[in-house]
Amino acid sequence: MEFFFSPKAVAVVGASRRPGKVGYELLRNLKEMYRGNLYAVNPEAREILGVPCYPSLHAVPGEVDVAVVSVPAERVIEVAEEAGRKGVKGLIVISGGFKEIGPEGAERERKLVEVTRKYGMRLIGPNCVGVYVPKTGMNTLFLSKDRQGYPAHGFIAFASQSGAFGSAVLDWAAMRGIGMSKFVSYGNKADVDEVDVLLYLKDDEDTRVITLYVEGVERGREFFRVLREVTKYKPVVVLKSGRTEAGARAASSHTGSLAGSDTIYDSMFKQSGAVRAYSMEELFDLAMGLAMQPPAAGDRVVVLTVGGGSGVMATDSLSELGLSVPRLSESTTRKLREVLLPFASPYNPVDVTGSATDEHLVEAIEIVLSSEDKVDAVMWLPYYMVPGITPELNKKFLERVKKVYRETGRVVPIVGVATGGSYTATYAKEAESMGIPMYVSPERAARVIKALVDYGRWLRRVGYFDYHIERFRRIFSI
Amino acid sequence: MEFFFSPKAVAVVGASRRPGKVGYELLRNLKEMYRGNLYAVNPEAREILGVPCYPSLHAVPGEVDVAVVSVPAERVIEVAEEAGRKGVKGLIVISGGFKEIGPEGAERERKLVEVTRKYGMRLIGPNCVGVYVPKTGMNTLFLSKDRQGYPAHGFIAFASQSGAFGSAVLDWAAMRGIGMSKFVSYGNKADVDEVDVLLYLKDDEDTRVITLYVEGVERGREFFRVLREVTKYKPVVVLKSGRTEAGARAASSHTGSLAGSDTIYDSMFKQSGAVRAYSMEELFDLAMGLAMQPPAAGDRVVVLTVGGGSGVMATDSLSELGLSVPRLSESTTRKLREVLLPFASPYNPVDVTGSATDEHLVEAIEIVLSSEDKVDAVMWLPYYMVPGITPELNKKFLERVKKVYRETGRVVPIVGVATGGSYTATYAKEAESMGIPMYVSPERAARVIKALVDYGRWLRRVGYFDYHIERFRRIFSI
Repeated sequence: MEFFFSPKAVAVVGASRRPGKVGYELLRNLKEMYRGNLYAVNPEAREILGVPCYPSLHAVPGEVDVAVVSVPAERVIEVAEEAGRKGVKGLIVISGGFKEIGPEGAERERKLVEVTRKYGMRLIGPNCVGVYVPKTGMNTLFLSKDRQGYPAHGFIAFASQSGAFGSAVLDWAAMRGIGMSKFVSYGNKADVDEVDVLLYLKDDEDTRVITLYVEGVERGREFFRVLREVTKYKPVVVLKSGRTEAGARAASSHTGSLAGSDTIYDSMFKQSGAVRAYSMEELFDLAMGLAMQPPAAGDRVVVLTVGGGSGVMATDSLSELGLSVPRLSESTTRKLREVLLPFASPYNPVDVTGSATDEHLVEAIEIVLSSEDKVDAVMWLPYYMVPGITPELNKKFLERVKKVYRETGRVVPIVGVATGGSYTATYAKEAESMGIPMYVSPERAARVIKALVDYGRWLRRVGYFDYHIERFRRIFSI
Repeated sequence: MEFFFSPKAVAVVGASRRPGKVGYELLRNLKEMYRGNLYAVNPEAREILGVPCYPSLHAVPGEVDVAVVSVPAERVIEVAEEAGRKGVKGLIVISGGFKEIGPEGAERERKLVEVTRKYGMRLIGPNCVGVYVPKTGMNTLFLSKDRQGYPAHGFIAFASQSGAFGSAVLDWAAMRGIGMSKFVSYGNKADVDEVDVLLYLKDDEDTRVITLYVEGVERGREFFRVLREVTKYKPVVVLKSGRTEAGARAASSHTGSLAGSDTIYDSMFKQSGAVRAYSMEELFDLAMGLAMQPPAAGDRVVVLTVGGGSGVMATDSLSELGLSVPRLSESTTRKLREVLLPFASPYNPVDVTGSATDEHLVEAIEIVLSSEDKVDAVMWLPYYMVPGITPELNKKFLERVKKVYRETGRVVPIVGVATGGSYTATYAKEAESMGIPMYVSPERAARVIKALVDYGRWLRRVGYFDYHIERFRRIFSI
C-alpha cells in the first residue's frame, strides 16, 4: 500500500475548474502540497490551476500510481476500468453514492470491487476523504486551506472511519502543533480497511504510534489478530464509538456499522494490547505520551511539583486510576530534605514549593530517579512562571535525567504538567520538543501514565518490554 | 467585604524598589491596573515606580481602605496595629510564616487575628495571593505580566484555596479568553474563608457563576448551609481535591486541611445543589455553560450535527452520563425529512451531513425546538469548515432560536461543539459571544449538559427553577 502514501504520480479524475467543487479544491490542495507528478483528468480543459489536463486517464502520458476519483457515482466504474487498463496501482474514490445510500449503491460498490480485483488494484473508499501525508504532500482532502489546517510531519498515524471527524481532527491537530505521519479515512471500506491499515502502519518507519477512530469493525477476528501482533511493536490507541445502545443506533445510521457489544470490544481490546481513549483529546494525549516515553515497569508513581494544590490533584487523579503514589523511603526522604527548602515537602508528592529554583527541581529528579525506591513513573509539574524558575529549566532538567539514566542503566516514563497561559505554553512546547510530553492538567497527565503502565504490563506479558526500552534509548539518545 | 474588591484607596506595606521582589511586582501590577488611590509604604523611599511612598501607614495622607501587606512575618502584627489605628477596613496579608510553618507561626496568626478583630478589620490571608478584580484593577498577585496573564472582566468568580494553582488558572483563563468577575485566594483563611466569599459572591451583580477550588473546609456545617442558600440564586461549581486517601494525605501536608471522607463531601455537595468538577478544565467548562444557558427541565437531549461520527460520540457521551437521547416522534421526523437533504438522518442524532447549508441547520433547530417532543436540551455540532456553511451561520441560527423561544414561550439549554483548528475556533468564539457555549469535543459538552440537567433538578426541588428561566430570558433578551 506504500503507493497510496508516497505515489510517484497522481491523477485527479473529475478535476474541476470551479472553486468550491470537490474536484477543484482537491486538485488545489495537491497542487500546493504534493511533490510528485500531478495530472488532471477532465475532457473539457487543457489545464486547471496550472496542472496539465487530459480528456481521459488513458490520455495521460506516463505512469499513474494513484487515481483520485471524484466523478459522479454512475461514472466511477467506467473510470475504474480505465484505470485498470492504464496500470494504475490504487484508486481513492472520494465520490459517494455507494453502499451508504442503500441496495442500489451496494450493488454499484460490489461491481466497483469486482473491477479493482480484476486488475489487481487496491481501493480506498468509496465515500471517503482519503489520505493525507505531510512528508510527501499526498493529500486527497477537499477542504481548502482557508478553512482547514493540515498538520506537519510527526510520529502519529491516524486512521478514521469518519471522514468529517477525521478532517476536523487534522484541523485541530494542526492548530495544536501535533504532527502526523499518515492520515487515512477509508469511508465504506470496500477494499482497504482497518486491518490493511494496521498492517501497513506496523512497518511504517515514520509512525511511532497508531491512533484509530472506529465505529464498527467487519473483519473482527482478523482485526484483533492483527492488532495483537501490531501492539508488540507499536502502541495502538483506539477511540471506539457506538459504545452505548443509543450510540450504536447512531453509528448504524451513520456508517451502517454494527457497533456490537462494548463489553466484548473492551475485552478484545484488552486482550490485544490496545489502549482505549474516550474522546478526541484523550486519543492524542495518550498517543503523544506513548510516542515520547518508555512503557512503565509497574504502577508506582512519584509526583514532583512546584505547586502544592496541583500535587494534591495529581495524587487524586493517579489514585483514582488505580495507580500508586507511595510514600518514599526514609533514605530518599532524607536526601530530598538535604537539598530542598526547609518548608518543602520531601514525601510524595515531592513539593519543592513556589519558592524553588531550577536547582531544587533538578536535584530532586536526580534523587528520585536514582533512589532505591522502586519508581516506575514520574509526573513532573514545573510552574514555569514562579520567580525562581529560569528559562534554562527544561535544558537542565533533561540533562540531569539523561545523566541519571546513563549512570543507573534504568529509564522511567516522565510525563509533565504545565497549567498556565502563553508564557507557560512556550516552555511546555520546549519541553515537548526535548522529549517530555506536557499536559495542561494533572488529570490528563494521569491518564497518560495509566496508559504507559497498562501498555508496559501488556509488553511484559508478550515479551516485548525490553524491545521498547531499547527503542526509547535510541530515540532519547542515551 | 466590597472594599476588598473595589477599594477607593490601597496601600502596599512592604513595597520594594527591587524588581523580582514580591513588594515590587505587586506594586507594579497595581500601578498598571488599579484605578483608585495607590500608596506605597517603605521608610527608605520617597516614591517607587511613580507611586508616592511613605515611611508608615500612619504617614499616608487620606484614607486607606485596604492595606496589602508583604513585610516579613515578624513585622505583620505591628503593621496590623498601625492599620487598625489608621482606620483601614481590610488587610490582605501576602506574607507567609504563619500557621503553615508550625506552632510558632500558628501563635503569630492567632495574635494577628486578635488585632484585626480589635479594630473591626477583615483579613484575607495570611500566606495568600489575595484578590484580582479586572473591573477595578484591584490586583494583589505578585507575578509580573511577562510571566502571568490576567483575564478580562467576565461573569465567573473563582475562589481558590491554593494560591499557586489560582494564579496558574488565571493565567490559563486569560489565554483561553475566559473572563472573570472576581478572583480570591485566602491562603490560611485566618478570617475570610469560603463561607464569607460565598455570601459575598451571592449578591455580587457581576458574578453569574461561582467556582471554587477546595482542599478542605473547616466550618463544614456553616459552609454547606450557606452553599445550599447560594445555589438557589447562582450555580456553584466545586473542584474538591484530596478525594482519595493519598490525595488527602497530600492535602494535609500542603494546606494542613483535613480533606475528610469524599463520600460525605459528595453527598453534602449533592444536598446543597453544588455541581462537582474533577479537573480545572471541567471546572470552567461547566462554569461557562451554567453562566450562559438556562437549566434543563429534564434529561431528554437532541443532538443536531453536521458530522455523523461526532453525532455518534455525542450520543455515547450523553448516554454514558445517564442522559437520554430519545428517538424523535414521527411527526417531528417527518418535518425534518421535508427540509433536510435526502441522505440526512432525521432521527436523533439529527445528522444534516457535511453537504448541509446554513438553512438546513436553521430549519432543523426550529423544528426541534418547536416540536411536541419534550426536548430538554440540545447539543449542537456545526462543522463551520464544510463548504455549505457560511460565516453567517451563527447569526442566522441564533436569530431563529430566539424567534422560536418567543413564539413557544419555552427555552432550553443549547450547548455547542466545534472540533477543529483556527478557522473553526474563530466561529466558535463568535457563537460564544452570542451566548452559546462551545466546546472542542462532544464529551466535554455532554458534561456541561449533565450539569445543566442536575442543576435544573436541584432548582425545581428548591423552587427556584422559574427564577433562573426568567434570568436567562433577560440575559438573552427574549
